[in-house]
Amino acid sequence: MHNKYIFTNIVGTFIFNEHYKLVDKILFRNNEQKEKLEKELSKKHSNLQKPEGKVLDKILEFFKSKEFFNDFYIKNLEITKKSVKDSVKEDVLIIQAIDNISGIDKASNTLVKRLREWYELYNPEFSNSIQEHEKFVEIILKKDKKQLQSEMSLKQTMGADLSKEDLEPISNLAKEINQLYQLRKKQEAYLENIMKGFCPNLLEVAGINIGAKLMGQAGSLKRLMLFPASTIQLLGAEKALFRHMKTKARSPKYGFLHEHPLISKNKKELHGKIARTLADKISIAVKVDYFKGQFIGDKLRKEVEDKFKKNN
Amino acid sequence: MHNKYIFTNIVGTFIFNEHYKLVDKILFRNNEQKEKLEKELSKKHSNLQKPEGKVLDKILEFFKSKEFFNDFYIKNLEITKKSVKDSVKEDVLIIQAIDNISGIDKASNTLVKRLREWYELYNPEFSNSIQEHEKFVEIILKKDKKQLQSEMSLKQTMGADLSKEDLEPISNLAKEINQLYQLRKKQEAYLENIMKGFCPNLLEVAGINIGAKLMGQAGSLKRLMLFPASTIQLLGAEKALFRHMKTKARSPKYGFLHEHPLISKNKKELHGKIARTLADKISIAVKVDYFKGQFIGDKLRKEVEDKFKKNN
Repeated sequence: MHNKYIFTNIVGTFIFNEHYKLVDKILFRNNEQKEKLEKELSKKHSNLQKPEGKVLDKILEFFKSKEFFNDFYIKNLEITKKSVKDSVKEDVLIIQAIDNISGIDKASNTLVKRLREWYELYNPEFSNSIQEHEKFVEIILKKDKKQLQSEMSLKQTMGADLSKEDLEPISNLAKEINQLYQLRKKQEAYLENIMKGFCPNLLEVAGINIGAKLMGQAGSLKRLMLFPASTIQLLGAEKALFRHMKTKARSPKYGFLHEHPLISKNKKELHGKIARTLADKISIAVKVDYFKGQFIGDKLRKEVEDKFKKNN
Repeated sequence: MHNKYIFTNIVGTFIFNEHYKLVDKILFRNNEQKEKLEKELSKKHSNLQKPEGKVLDKILEFFKSKEFFNDFYIKNLEITKKSVKDSVKEDVLIIQAIDNISGIDKASNTLVKRLREWYELYNPEFSNSIQEHEKFVEIILKKDKKQLQSEMSLKQTMGADLSKEDLEPISNLAKEINQLYQLRKKQEAYLENIMKGFCPNLLEVAGINIGAKLMGQAGSLKRLMLFPASTIQLLGAEKALFRHMKTKARSPKYGFLHEHPLISKNKKELHGKIARTLADKISIAVKVDYFKGQFIGDKLRKEVEDKFKKNN
């Protein structure tokens, strides 16, 4: 009895006889049933072989016929669309969320500077007395000029008396900025929530913002996992690093990590050392997260804390 | 009978005898009554002269005494504070408002770019199909993915299926951006309103945004009034102008004016000419506004329109 050959591609599964003529086929409707249909067809025939070498060349030639062009095109498109669709994983959402938080920060900073300049025409003494933007916005929405001036026991103000119509756009702007601050909090809570499920160890050791920024800079959790600790230590300091490599400028000691409370709360001399230790632990945390290991983030974090408690 | 001298400064009004000894005085409480009090005092004395030359020198020496230092200091501070307070005129409010509108534009642009990138994970085909940001935000707030896909008669999407929790932060961001757009409209209405009272002619000829930007660049209506038309034509094109002066780059033909509908709606060859005519008319409008003349804005605008209607 002669051999038959079974050959499967994205369009369907096909049986050829020893003269490379098509004798049977099943076309695929969608990609899920591929293997099932291949088995079904192979049960109907005996003496089946997978084509190899010259036989394979002959069979591939068969598919060069124009009648398959459209099928291949459509199937290809379907598969590409599906893989684009499936590529949206938690990494992508985390990166979008942190980019969005940075965007909100940028927007609210732009607007709060404008708000202060505008408000200072009216009540410069108060704006000057409070440095923190978020508090400033919150208070001027609650209290009017008279209240604020009397709280500061100020008798004479340099601020102009503005009419109600002129004050309205100022307070509208303040309301909007306040909403941006509220939105930022919501987005941060959302970000924390996906990170808790996807990379709890990274979240615990690095914190929400730094953890997400590290992932954003790397492009995905997988790529971040592949980075050595020394790279993690310097992520976010690319500019300073290249300046160091081009000129004789000092090499940076940390990038995004400089915002980490363990670093900012410690003595300046220790910053470089802490950054190195922290990057080590983050590197471990990311690997555990990527391979879905257990939660050891609290232990890792404590190791860094303990190491630098003694030194202080 | 001997001469007496009357001398007034910010602290009070004083009478000296011929030996330059103080014989009478009234100290000022506030600046408003200055002239009234001076008159009052001068009625009580006869043969009064304003001191000049050497007499003035002697009298000024009198005020070098330490007892006046504190008075001068306090009065000076009061006057400075008052003049700072009084310096807030419509110009300043207009400039604040237009700067704020630019700030809102910048902020909403930053955020809408982030929104699109995020939303495109979910429904890329729709984001791609609509270029205008404001419409895009409005529609995705009203309709869900299914509706939009069926309206586009799209069977398969490349967008991922996102859970409700993952969609929430996206729609929160869209809501926020929509509010920024609404705020911008309110602020523009406010700006139009003050401009109507303060510089109606400039408003009519240049429009809200260009008019306010011109004033902002000049610093005040007065300074804008002092600019020649050729400067007005190039306001906002400073970068290109300096590039032209330093290198052999072509000189700019217009700055802020390029956004004017009369320019953008006409043929490109005419742009330079229209900008020159428009700047002439704006220069007239600003002068009329500054000296509180009548409303001739509609006439001025029509002159520009008519001139270039024939040529088209």
